[in-house]
Amino acid sequence: MVRNLVAKGFRVMAYDIAPAALAAAGGLGASPAASAAAAARPSDLVVTMLPSSSHVESAYFGPGGVAEGIAPGRLCVDMSTIDPATSRRVAARLGERGVRFIDAPVSGGVVGAEKGTLAIMVGGDPADLDEARPALAAMGANIIHVGPVGAGEVAKLCNNLIAGVATVAVSEAFRIAEGFGVDPQVLTRVIASSSGRTWIMEHGHPVPGIVPEAASSRDYVPGFTVDLMCKDLGLAVDAARALRVPVAVASAAQQILRLASSHGYGRKDVSSVYAFLSASSAEAPV
Amino acid sequence: MVRNLVAKGFRVMAYDIAPAALAAAGGLGASPAASAAAAARPSDLVVTMLPSSSHVESAYFGPGGVAEGIAPGRLCVDMSTIDPATSRRVAARLGERGVRFIDAPVSGGVVGAEKGTLAIMVGGDPADLDEARPALAAMGANIIHVGPVGAGEVAKLCNNLIAGVATVAVSEAFRIAEGFGVDPQVLTRVIASSSGRTWIMEHGHPVPGIVPEAASSRDYVPGFTVDLMCKDLGLAVDAARALRVPVAVASAAQQILRLASSHGYGRKDVSSVYAFLSASSAEAPV
Amino acid sequence: MVRNLVAKGFRVMAYDIAPAALAAAGGLGASPAASAAAAARPSDLVVTMLPSSSHVESAYFGPGGVAEGIAPGRLCVDMSTIDPATSRRVAARLGERGVRFIDAPVSGGVVGAEKGTLAIMVGGDPADLDEARPALAAMGANIIHVGPVGAGEVAKLCNNLIAGVATVAVSEAFRIAEGFGVDPQVLTRVIASSSGRTWIMEHGHPVPGIVPEAASSRDYVPGFTVDLMCKDLGLAVDAARALRVPVAVASAAQQILRLASSHGYGRKDVSSVYAFLSASSAEAPV
Amino acid sequence: MVRNLVAKGFRVMAYDIAPAALAAAGGLGASPAASAAAAARPSDLVVTMLPSSSHVESAYFGPGGVAEGIAPGRLCVDMSTIDPATSRRVAARLGERGVRFIDAPVSGGVVGAEKGTLAIMVGGDPADLDEARPALAAMGANIIHVGPVGAGEVAKLCNNLIAGVATVAVSEAFRIAEGFGVDPQVLTRVIASSSGRTWIMEHGHPVPGIVPEAASSRDYVPGFTVDLMCKDLGLAVDAARALRVPVAVASAAQQILRLASSHGYGRKDVSSVYAFLSASSAEAPV
Repeated sequence: MVRNLVAKGFRVMAYDIAPAALAAAGGLGASPAASAAAAARPSDLVVTMLPSSSHVESAYFGPGGVAEGIAPGRLCVDMSTIDPATSRRVAARLGERGVRFIDAPVSGGVVGAEKGTLAIMVGGDPADLDEARPALAAMGANIIHVGPVGAGEVAKLCNNLIAGVATVAVSEAFRIAEGFGVDPQVLTRVIASSSGRTWIMEHGHPVPGIVPEAASSRDYVPGFTVDLMCKDLGLAVDAARALRVPVAVASAAQQILRLASSHGYGRKDVSSVYAFLSASSAEAPV
Repeated sequence: MVRNLVAKGFRVMAYDIAPAALAAAGGLGASPAASAAAAARPSDLVVTMLPSSSHVESAYFGPGGVAEGIAPGRLCVDMSTIDPATSRRVAARLGERGVRFIDAPVSGGVVGAEKGTLAIMVGGDPADLDEARPALAAMGANIIHVGPVGAGEVAKLCNNLIAGVATVAVSEAFRIAEGFGVDPQVLTRVIASSSGRTWIMEHGHPVPGIVPEAASSRDYVPGFTVDLMCKDLGLAVDAARALRVPVAVASAAQQILRLASSHGYGRKDVSSVYAFLSASSAEAPV
Repeated sequence: MVRNLVAKGFRVMAYDIAPAALAAAGGLGASPAASAAAAARPSDLVVTMLPSSSHVESAYFGPGGVAEGIAPGRLCVDMSTIDPATSRRVAARLGERGVRFIDAPVSGGVVGAEKGTLAIMVGGDPADLDEARPALAAMGANIIHVGPVGAGEVAKLCNNLIAGVATVAVSEAFRIAEGFGVDPQVLTRVIASSSGRTWIMEHGHPVPGIVPEAASSRDYVPGFTVDLMCKDLGLAVDAARALRVPVAVASAAQQILRLASSHGYGRKDVSSVYAFLSASSAEAPV
Repeated sequence: MVRNLVAKGFRVMAYDIAPAALAAAGGLGASPAASAAAAARPSDLVVTMLPSSSHVESAYFGPGGVAEGIAPGRLCVDMSTIDPATSRRVAARLGERGVRFIDAPVSGGVVGAEKGTLAIMVGGDPADLDEARPALAAMGANIIHVGPVGAGEVAKLCNNLIAGVATVAVSEAFRIAEGFGVDPQVLTRVIASSSGRTWIMEHGHPVPGIVPEAASSRDYVPGFTVDLMCKDLGLAVDAARALRVPVAVASAAQQILRLASSHGYGRKDVSSVYAFLSASSAEAPV
């Protein structure tokens, strides 16, 4: 992000609680700041990207946080993947100070970045998005306005819910086919022209050797890790809980990825769940 | 099927254990036979389509079954959706009498039939498929050879496993979006260009009014019913059990569709699971 | 609670954000206070019981909250069922002011209250528990020290995870037995002397008429509601997510109860999931 | 079984398709027969115990099977754990020849055998059970008449459904407690006096060192294996499918045990699922 912003001519002040990360940003051409507040104080636009909801709340409202430094009237863009309720809460608290906020999580992972198909899903006021668009355009090719604040996160979670579930379902299907000795190449062609067609099978096929550019064909080097998908499914399931929406299939997928992570697949590509779902070799009563 | 075969100039002998169905076949131009054996005896090709594995075994090997009447060297085509192990068992038993067998389940449902995209997935010897091809071509536009006997059923089950799971996952995702007040039209466009893209969302969208030709837009009139998808997921889960393949997500989808069926959705389109997954309106501690 | 404390001779100051509830407490002999802070200021012991983690945090640290009024050195007892991480966070923040905290959720529901088997599971310093014991003894017969702060909540969630899952499992088993026409009375006796024995079957049997005092025998009037069990399973699943513990079975039970709630069972006893899990009456392909 | 029958003075003819097993039976004092038919021909009572439904059908009706040798009026006792529908089908086919049949699966596993608490759950005519009782009493202490033919199997499956689900649920709960650092000894005492009490926690506690005689305390040497419980849950889920009963929690437990089996736990005690459900040690975003 920093590299791209600097390359496009933006002047960037950076802050990270990890000194190494901050130094790295400095190496890419950003000016290091002493705190989030210090970085926010002189800036026209604040961009944040953090690993969890509680980190976002701390970065904005904790000691030395954005809220301490930012001037009324300014705009904040949070590119973290967090739960939409947190985005709305942060926006409301900033709004009390006259500060504007949009959520803009990124989708597409490493593959998207390589292929230039990285998408930014934005929730917030359209005028605020227009103001942030030049900076966002430096980081992603495809900027989509989804709705009011939080809607970017909702779109990200809903998309990843489907993608995560599909990854496990495609893996289960191809394990069954393997058990019957059916050629996965042929099965892929059949499903690709039928009702089971999914982006996941076409671009992230879990069986090695079917789709050359898929992570499965390079030993499941990510791509998008099991742990990240597990986190996103967890956010979706958690949001569903608060909304009282039943999500049995998303929950089942989340738990399978959690188990895969426990057994060493956490940092492999999510499609490696196919490897985790191996049939038992033991001879035992069925 | 009978109508299409007769229309293409085939002479058809028909048998059904239900007198009304047999009479209906007669009305379409088929000659009624007194038993499956009687229909099989003079015929060049035997075509069967039955609701379950046990029905198939009875129709071939029960009293008055195909095996009693068919001459050695003839070919049987079973278009039922059943478990692949049964297809292989039937093929093996027929093979002992010198009778050939291929499995050729149909995919695509009512929509496929209307659009001419009905697919026939075939397992068996390629030469046998060639022999059956004229009759199959009268019934489906798209004939795909998947592999040896049973492979047609495997492809059908694997495809429907993915399609069934995706239907529930898409429904869960759009219920979450609804809970957050996000516009389903916009969300559909976002997901359609991202990793959550599925055939199901594009052609069988569960939210009414998004895809005009989807069952959801005509009060969930099928299409492909909850009960049929539940049956196919059950076959897939059962096959997985025999193969010792873990299929937690397919199982979860199967059970949700089973619950939907228990609550009156069995004969509606499978996408009506979206209606079943309504959020609770009760005010209660979350 | 108020009634019991007053009956045992305690002088009680009460506060509730709902005026009606506050008035009711007044009617039972408590002195109404203007805020949580006002109630906490003169008191030797603060007791709280609230419906969710965010309510607890607000009641302690929001405007007019306990922390504004309480004197250093005092003890707080939170009897809410919330997630253990919140208990620990509240305890830590109070500790910074020299205020002590123990968590003491209650188990046993209406049945426990009637039978005098209500249990209080306590997490915190044993000396603090001793200080609170007279007040706790006025409210529950069975006070158990589980461990440090948060351990009371952990015990409650773990117990209810098992109880909630068992309720669904017992219901599934008796639905299968019903499908085969097996007498549930006899089956209950068989299971009661075998490895499937559970407290749930013995005291909360989901089939009406087997255990006279169970909620199922009085039209599923709670008892402990579907919504409360769903909340507790949600807390357990959520805690597991933060701990990275796989909990596929607890998740499945949570989602089934969520669905039951969506279909009108939310305020019935949790054992009414048996009614929700009715077999489909439709005749359809299996 | 053979040893016990011979010890009680029964004259036993034995048959097994595995020569080694047949020789072993000979060494225990049984007379080897050349086929199931040959063993059945001169016998007053036929007792069978086989690993699956299809084995039972073959043993009775395949070439050299019981049905070829048995005289009308005789009684058969099948002690296999199979699906109740198969028991009923076998009983009906034998009934056409005037042969009687009861199902009598055994419960309790190795622990039950050691403690003399082995239970035999019987389905069939009470008079038939009385006739078989002396032989059954040589093999199990606790003979329970559940209902008509198949009811013994139903009771076994329903009991094991609950026991299997409870084993996973107890494991999940104690993994959560471990994550919070709560002492499992104390937690066991708390749950033992609350609504989460189960036979499984008391006798088959999954955490090593809590219950000395549990399999967990001897490195998960069975006991009752993961694979056997997975088989029984599979039979229960499959029976539920045919009955159209929703069993989401039993399915989830079955799939978790299937995964555990795939990862090397198949021949360990079912309580070893606790070991399989370890939390991830990886540091990754939660």
